[in-house]
Amino acid sequence: MAKFIGIIGGSDAPEGILELAEQVGSLVATRGCVLVCGGLGGVMEAAAKGAKMAGGLTVGILPGSSRSDANPHIDIAIATNMGHARNAIIAHTCDALIAIGGRYGTLSEIGFGLALGKRVVSLESWDVDPGIVAAENPEDAVSKAIA
Amino acid sequence: MAKFIGIIGGSDAPEGILELAEQVGSLVATRGCVLVCGGLGGVMEAAAKGAKMAGGLTVGILPGSSRSDANPHIDIAIATNMGHARNAIIAHTCDALIAIGGRYGTLSEIGFGLALGKRVVSLESWDVDPGIVAAENPEDAVSKAIA
Amino acid sequence: MAKFIGIIGGSDAPEGILELAEQVGSLVATRGCVLVCGGLGGVMEAAAKGAKMAGGLTVGILPGSSRSDANPHIDIAIATNMGHARNAIIAHTCDALIAIGGRYGTLSEIGFGLALGKRVVSLESWDVDPGIVAAENPEDAVSKAIA
Amino acid sequence: MAKFIGIIGGSDAPEGILELAEQVGSLVATRGCVLVCGGLGGVMEAAAKGAKMAGGLTVGILPGSSRSDANPHIDIAIATNMGHARNAIIAHTCDALIAIGGRYGTLSEIGFGLALGKRVVSLESWDVDPGIVAAENPEDAVSKAIA
Repeated sequence: MAKFIGIIGGSDAPEGILELAEQVGSLVATRGCVLVCGGLGGVMEAAAKGAKMAGGLTVGILPGSSRSDANPHIDIAIATNMGHARNAIIAHTCDALIAIGGRYGTLSEIGFGLALGKRVVSLESWDVDPGIVAAENPEDAVSKAIA
Repeated sequence: MAKFIGIIGGSDAPEGILELAEQVGSLVATRGCVLVCGGLGGVMEAAAKGAKMAGGLTVGILPGSSRSDANPHIDIAIATNMGHARNAIIAHTCDALIAIGGRYGTLSEIGFGLALGKRVVSLESWDVDPGIVAAENPEDAVSKAIA
Repeated sequence: MAKFIGIIGGSDAPEGILELAEQVGSLVATRGCVLVCGGLGGVMEAAAKGAKMAGGLTVGILPGSSRSDANPHIDIAIATNMGHARNAIIAHTCDALIAIGGRYGTLSEIGFGLALGKRVVSLESWDVDPGIVAAENPEDAVSKAIA
Repeated sequence: MAKFIGIIGGSDAPEGILELAEQVGSLVATRGCVLVCGGLGGVMEAAAKGAKMAGGLTVGILPGSSRSDANPHIDIAIATNMGHARNAIIAHTCDALIAIGGRYGTLSEIGFGLALGKRVVSLESWDVDPGIVAAENPEDAVSKAIA
């Protein structure tokens, strides 16, 4: 069974972070993993775009009530209608998480991932606990997430 | 965007119901729709099996905390860890629902579908409201769900 | 520990149903039980009003994100931000449910209650399964819910 | 309407943290606020105990499916059956959060609180963002939470 890698980060992110996200998404797909994210814009969209351009499969766990909220690079959109609580679903359903940039929603996701014993990799994101695995670049991040 | 058709029914179902579910799953895939279900056994497994044999894509919205709970015919398993509340996610994320047999969980799902204004088709399932569309056989059920 | 009795029904209900709900709420409080409901208007508000006038305690499990959505007779408002999925929480947290009138949301709640093995009493509400206990009037409904 | 103050922290905590939690709970009640927590042991139980000894009202938003999971100082137990996702409900329903000690679950709760724009006070807990208000002692924590 393919691994599910969750990419977490903000819907509003600077250009450099978006480029990292797209590279991470591409590598996740190249490594044969399913990319899971929150389905919206910013880091989520860039990562999904990267994965699709590399021929991967993308899943978006949306906070709202409509699949049409998903960015155009999501293959399977899940409309949870649960707002931020959908972060818990992402943490449960993924084998590992890669945080790229991000703010408070990302922090909650990191907390869930760690609480559930999932591997949490940080790429220019929150570095607030020894349980978080720091990554130096997209390749390093994906390798550490899959390891 | 492909339509998402939710198949709902019990994890423990008689043989005749399972055969109907497999046929419905096959037709959902043949018609180019994504099959969504609760990801477990019984009607969910039979429908997913039918969809996979017809080359379709299957999504399982699981009640538990692990993707490994999914039946072997699920392509994308979502571990919600929310028990029965995951029925609300199925109702939100699907364009239409087809109930096949089923008992109380199915009834809650039908209630959600109707409350959200989704088309709800019943095939040998609950027939308790004029808002539920009765179907005579698998082909009729899928046609009415997609219409 | 006091029993938690869930009162379920529509936010838009005819006068006769609202009167029944207020009487049921009053009796729930008189019998020393905590009244739980969805926290909004209609049957939920009438039942909470009845319970408060009888000196009871009321809990509203709201679908939205703000406690201020609650009707004025709710003591403890819980803002779930989960829409209809909050019905599953009501079913889990109550010892018994009394449905009064109501439409599709009520039907989903009844399905959850039955699926969880909770006692479900119907007063001029859905009568679609032998597992639902029919009540003839408010006193009968509360007695059967508490029994 | 009374303010709802959420106390967050681990179910397993050292004695010094538990004493702080009990004092915080007592002050929350003395100031006329409702104490909300996750309903289990450790910091949640100590805070609820403090609130009850000061005559307050306590609400426990439980991760599991049964009200009987609540510690004995909880007046109103809500069984969500949603595991860690119940942290999002605590964040939505509270006016402010006070984190006392705690690990990863607490971190997810802090993330939610900040994401929702709620005041988040830290007492010997995560100090990872300028948006978190540091408190020096229980009195300081409650004053800053209520301010």
